[in-house]
Amino acid sequence: MSTVKVVLLRHGESSWNKENRFTGWADVPLSEKGLTEAKFAGKQLKENGFTFDVAYTSMLSRAIKTLWLALEEMNLMYIPVYPNWRLNERMYGALQGLDKAETAAKHGEDQVKVWRRAYAIPPPALDESNQYYPGNDPRYKHLNPADLPKTECLKDTVDRFLPAWHNEIVPQIKSGKKVLIAAHGNSLRALIKYLDNVSDDDIVELNVPTGIPLIYELDAETLKPVKKSYYLADEETVKAAQSAVANQGKKKE
Amino acid sequence: MSTVKVVLLRHGESSWNKENRFTGWADVPLSEKGLTEAKFAGKQLKENGFTFDVAYTSMLSRAIKTLWLALEEMNLMYIPVYPNWRLNERMYGALQGLDKAETAAKHGEDQVKVWRRAYAIPPPALDESNQYYPGNDPRYKHLNPADLPKTECLKDTVDRFLPAWHNEIVPQIKSGKKVLIAAHGNSLRALIKYLDNVSDDDIVELNVPTGIPLIYELDAETLKPVKKSYYLADEETVKAAQSAVANQGKKKE
Repeated sequence: MSTVKVVLLRHGESSWNKENRFTGWADVPLSEKGLTEAKFAGKQLKENGFTFDVAYTSMLSRAIKTLWLALEEMNLMYIPVYPNWRLNERMYGALQGLDKAETAAKHGEDQVKVWRRAYAIPPPALDESNQYYPGNDPRYKHLNPADLPKTECLKDTVDRFLPAWHNEIVPQIKSGKKVLIAAHGNSLRALIKYLDNVSDDDIVELNVPTGIPLIYELDAETLKPVKKSYYLADEETVKAAQSAVANQGKKKE
Repeated sequence: MSTVKVVLLRHGESSWNKENRFTGWADVPLSEKGLTEAKFAGKQLKENGFTFDVAYTSMLSRAIKTLWLALEEMNLMYIPVYPNWRLNERMYGALQGLDKAETAAKHGEDQVKVWRRAYAIPPPALDESNQYYPGNDPRYKHLNPADLPKTECLKDTVDRFLPAWHNEIVPQIKSGKKVLIAAHGNSLRALIKYLDNVSDDDIVELNVPTGIPLIYELDAETLKPVKKSYYLADEETVKAAQSAVANQGKKKE
């Protein structure tokens, strides 16, 4: 049986993690720690003999920068990089830019928990005058405004992400290319849900640590996993990073 | 008359500039000064209101890094970037990696001057066991080995570069895209020779300074320049940078 490896990489810590604000499609940079995480991910991949022919990423700087830094560590700056809006983070609607205190004051703690953790309930939509409305951002000018989300639940992110997998990424894998995907907590959850057939309830509890490459080995024909996916780090490092993300989720997103 | 702008950017100083070695297709990184030059170019473009829809660069890290740093300064990390081997620096054949003293000892000063400054006389070819033979480099594995140069005179670089202009870049410009091209002294000379119809004798005397955007305004139909191209810097800065490059050429390449 012939298999192919596909590597998923969540961007390093961003500056808003510290500030405790809902990020979503807001284009915030990596923190110093995030820059270090990205380089470390590249080193890990290189030391473990990984190489890539093509990379996919989102339209957001924190994922692109993570990819660039990792590629630089791997001496792979020259491979084609495809930024795609479908790989963006979950769009957090009217919550984007708000910190936890502001959000709780406006909508109540319980409601906020629902928006964070329910698979199919989106937060309130942002309107077109909102500074984070993607229709006002030149990076999305070539897209049909009707495609641009004004809010998303995780289910919406899955529905938005999967066409990029099927139409862009799968053909590359099928043509024999080794693919690296640098994206976000929720767009990677969307792919993990699909590949591992995770239930709606379980996917919201699954935490992808930042800056640790996640390796999938897929059957080359069916592109179904032939074994459990694994992180390119020892178990303790992964657990610590996952619980850091989970705890972060309790206070911020 | 409708016009379009196309911007050319030569990468910043590389680490081998200091070491006085023939670089060509050897993949050497930017020096600290080169990193600063790249960021400054991005700032200049941004402050002067330039924006881009797509960027072309070579397969060599020093041009890609220059582009990435400039795009980051412009908040344009998300635009598609196309690395293309046809934008690579002139292939310097068996001289690659040698310093001036080694080269002069091996081939004589006068001969070296000819290889540097004659339009149509290439240095000796490297053979396939040479560490710089591109056929041994994974970045070129998807190309036909017969297309990979073993040496080049500037005329060869022009012939190799122009298909990328006609087949890749021109269609983007014609479709209304704003294009940034980050490349090398000799691959940019190739484009300048074509656009400005520079003679074989004059092109070898033309020096493109590092890290200063060169702006072409072209007729949108014919893609012929509607006015003289200009650097995005004051005249003194450009002259100082050009003579630095010219003097560098006397000792190293």
